[in-house]
Amino acid sequence: MSTDKSQRHNERMKRHKEVVDAKIEQATIERGVVIVITGNGKGKTTSALGTLLRSLGHGHQCTLVQFIKGQWDCGESRFFSDPSCALSDKLQTFTMDTGFTWNTQDFDTDKQAAQEVWQQALAYFSDPDCRLIILDEITYMFKYRYLDINDLIQAIQNRPEQQSIIITGRGAARELIELADTVSEIQPIKHAFNQGIKAQEGIEW
Amino acid sequence: MSTDKSQRHNERMKRHKEVVDAKIEQATIERGVVIVITGNGKGKTTSALGTLLRSLGHGHQCTLVQFIKGQWDCGESRFFSDPSCALSDKLQTFTMDTGFTWNTQDFDTDKQAAQEVWQQALAYFSDPDCRLIILDEITYMFKYRYLDINDLIQAIQNRPEQQSIIITGRGAARELIELADTVSEIQPIKHAFNQGIKAQEGIEW
Repeated sequence: MSTDKSQRHNERMKRHKEVVDAKIEQATIERGVVIVITGNGKGKTTSALGTLLRSLGHGHQCTLVQFIKGQWDCGESRFFSDPSCALSDKLQTFTMDTGFTWNTQDFDTDKQAAQEVWQQALAYFSDPDCRLIILDEITYMFKYRYLDINDLIQAIQNRPEQQSIIITGRGAARELIELADTVSEIQPIKHAFNQGIKAQEGIEW
Repeated sequence: MSTDKSQRHNERMKRHKEVVDAKIEQATIERGVVIVITGNGKGKTTSALGTLLRSLGHGHQCTLVQFIKGQWDCGESRFFSDPSCALSDKLQTFTMDTGFTWNTQDFDTDKQAAQEVWQQALAYFSDPDCRLIILDEITYMFKYRYLDINDLIQAIQNRPEQQSIIITGRGAARELIELADTVSEIQPIKHAFNQGIKAQEGIEW
């Protein structure tokens, strides 16, 4: 690149840095956050798992609650259940034991399974040592009326100040979006599955 | 719930299962995929990291190339550099060593750093044992003209059949979106940072 172009690039970068620095200076509140990751695109559960990895990397105690994918032989379960990995000792996991709800097709059994896993999760909402709780695919539990959304809202509002919560799943309710500090909506521009490509280990599970 | 309502729920679930099963049956192609995760919302890098975790959990060899966040003391680096974790042995990581580009503000140095890390990554595009390559935040490298997008396109097109590629970053180029099998665009509905909440370890890094 010519010296002129290179200089203009450097000046643009300098202005960009000034804008970013000013924003960083304005952000002064220190507390846990509520993150909602919703929308129909691929990447909701994996985004929560990536944040979990970060938090565990810093030695935080974390809780992962999976409401839908429980029965799959998924890579994340294999990873975290590897006994060699000391950092995974800080992680508690709970999975709803009926797996994909449309495989069981029984309202009463599924509701009971959802309630059981919710009660296990609830204990961590009053534990200040637990820095992160992930409620993976919990949105469907409200849609199907297995769980009451007001119980979750109350738990979130009464949680320890430094605790963060991540909620994933399609169609997050308006109340959750209002309550959240950060909301990302993942739009599906395209998906391999719709082009006839099989779901595969390491990508979909 | 009344028996009637419960029965209607079960029937809806049964129909849902039929639709899902039919789609699964139609998806018969088995090969690696190209995934692009773009948009201005939070969750792009973490989504790639979550997929990495899955793939490592299944014992796959993976390569993670980070173009922007290299210098941060981030949780993912800490996690993967923990020597106790045997599954992480299957992971190769490369980071561009100038860190955030707007902190250096020097076109020539940054371009050289980008080129160096790209050359390291490129070797894995011809290694059939490498099942997943993540190019985290590479989109900015094309925007700033540090790298040539045609080099990436060519590498993707010539890669081993079972290898998957994940590309993250804002403003993914049209050529990449066309080439990809799966594209997710993350929309920022809201972000804690804009409400004065400080970026924090375990969440932002």
